[in-house]
Amino acid sequence: MYSSEMQVRVRYAETDQMNVVYHGNYAQYFEVGRVESLRQLGLSYKELEATGVIMPVIEWTAKFLRPAHYDDLLTVKTSLRELPAGHRIEFHQEVYNESGRLLTTGKVVLYFLRRANMEKTNMPEEMKERLAPYFIPGGDQPSTV
Amino acid sequence: MYSSEMQVRVRYAETDQMNVVYHGNYAQYFEVGRVESLRQLGLSYKELEATGVIMPVIEWTAKFLRPAHYDDLLTVKTSLRELPAGHRIEFHQEVYNESGRLLTTGKVVLYFLRRANMEKTNMPEEMKERLAPYFIPGGDQPSTV
Amino acid sequence: MYSSEMQVRVRYAETDQMNVVYHGNYAQYFEVGRVESLRQLGLSYKELEATGVIMPVIEWTAKFLRPAHYDDLLTVKTSLRELPAGHRIEFHQEVYNESGRLLTTGKVVLYFLRRANMEKTNMPEEMKERLAPYFIPGGDQPSTV
Amino acid sequence: MYSSEMQVRVRYAETDQMNVVYHGNYAQYFEVGRVESLRQLGLSYKELEATGVIMPVIEWTAKFLRPAHYDDLLTVKTSLRELPAGHRIEFHQEVYNESGRLLTTGKVVLYFLRRANMEKTNMPEEMKERLAPYFIPGGDQPSTV
Repeated sequence: MYSSEMQVRVRYAETDQMNVVYHGNYAQYFEVGRVESLRQLGLSYKELEATGVIMPVIEWTAKFLRPAHYDDLLTVKTSLRELPAGHRIEFHQEVYNESGRLLTTGKVVLYFLRRANMEKTNMPEEMKERLAPYFIPGGDQPSTV
Repeated sequence: MYSSEMQVRVRYAETDQMNVVYHGNYAQYFEVGRVESLRQLGLSYKELEATGVIMPVIEWTAKFLRPAHYDDLLTVKTSLRELPAGHRIEFHQEVYNESGRLLTTGKVVLYFLRRANMEKTNMPEEMKERLAPYFIPGGDQPSTV
Repeated sequence: MYSSEMQVRVRYAETDQMNVVYHGNYAQYFEVGRVESLRQLGLSYKELEATGVIMPVIEWTAKFLRPAHYDDLLTVKTSLRELPAGHRIEFHQEVYNESGRLLTTGKVVLYFLRRANMEKTNMPEEMKERLAPYFIPGGDQPSTV
Repeated sequence: MYSSEMQVRVRYAETDQMNVVYHGNYAQYFEVGRVESLRQLGLSYKELEATGVIMPVIEWTAKFLRPAHYDDLLTVKTSLRELPAGHRIEFHQEVYNESGRLLTTGKVVLYFLRRANMEKTNMPEEMKERLAPYFIPGGDQPSTV
């Protein structure tokens, strides 16, 4: 398993008149969670796109257990439970508040597509190499940070 | 079953650099779909909140089958497959483009909460009365518009 | 002068915990106001982009006189006070609520750029032709709708 | 003068199909700039609201000189050129990219309002005390960080 964490502070713009974060804005928190998760591996999603591979979101699921509030410093935890094989990658994501309470859980499925023809493609080799050490059965796993 | 449709045009702000609607923005399309669905029944979510009942989103799921593009005039179809019993309501939602192609499917679960104490409450009576005719087994259903 | 109106309903996502529309979201209301303003002239911004001309926003100003609230059906009024000459176009925009109260005024300056080289270019001929009749000094002006 | 800086990374959601940050999203960058500016003074906007004072945006102006792109690590510089007197506060804001190029300049005017009656009120005493040292004519100013 590969797992990483990053923090994001709730903006005023992200609240709604229920005095909580609008549910649709978790898509952005999950997005930054995944991007920083890759960055912690030494990978840049921006550079990936520059090589012609894009990763559109194909499936997005979340359960909202407790609300997040304005100015909360949230922790987004992003995990890969399996090494992706093929064109599909599945992230599990969790959002915690400062007291460590779990607010939201989610699962996001993305595809690897070649931008030129929008055809499915395999996970790029460099990503595979960076991720593989975290999925050695019975082996010691590298520490994330 | 109760089912309704409404249209929404894709804003420039809602696209991203993949030249499609950012996945997180479907939360807003689904939201307006549900709100107009209630309005077509003669119910106003705004007035519901004024009576002290709020409907936070508890679960949100979507599959993105095909992308929506800038300026597309989308049709959002919103359905209740069962008459809600208790504090939980489950909407099924679909987004179609102008050629009638299905772009996105989703399921959204909301709770009825009493704002004063944030406790679960039953679906308001008025909503129940408006919806009930659509769920008479074997019965004729009223036409939506 | 060329002037047009369109309506937009406030989404829950667009409110913030001050129980009003977040000021940044007026950028989207102004955007749809401009786009529909062009559409009422028989022009499509989407098609304009397809011809290789883009219109980035260069300057954006607004005064927020009164707040807009959830579910308000707003009227966005969009005006050109002068026929653009060259690469610059300046829209004046106003937002009214259902009781006809003026909520927001704004001014938005955009440039015409050729996407291929990002160089300034003149307003496309077709747009000029459609707009010109509204700026004949002392002349009768076509009715907008 | 009081001036502070903070950083914000461009999210994918914030780009549009022009491959740049959508202009309306700068409202959020400016917002986090102001909030962190206050936090660096030891002030929390969240706590301010808890005391019954809100700060709605009354005027918002920006010039977009150069575009920001996905994943850019932007620096938002927020300045008060004058010590506010009364119910009005005026921030000057600038956005720079990682190479130090100025992308956007803006001016944002906010009012201090008492939430209970929505009446104008003076800047809270604590804020005045924290800001005053930066506006002593001819005096040494405290360093910001």
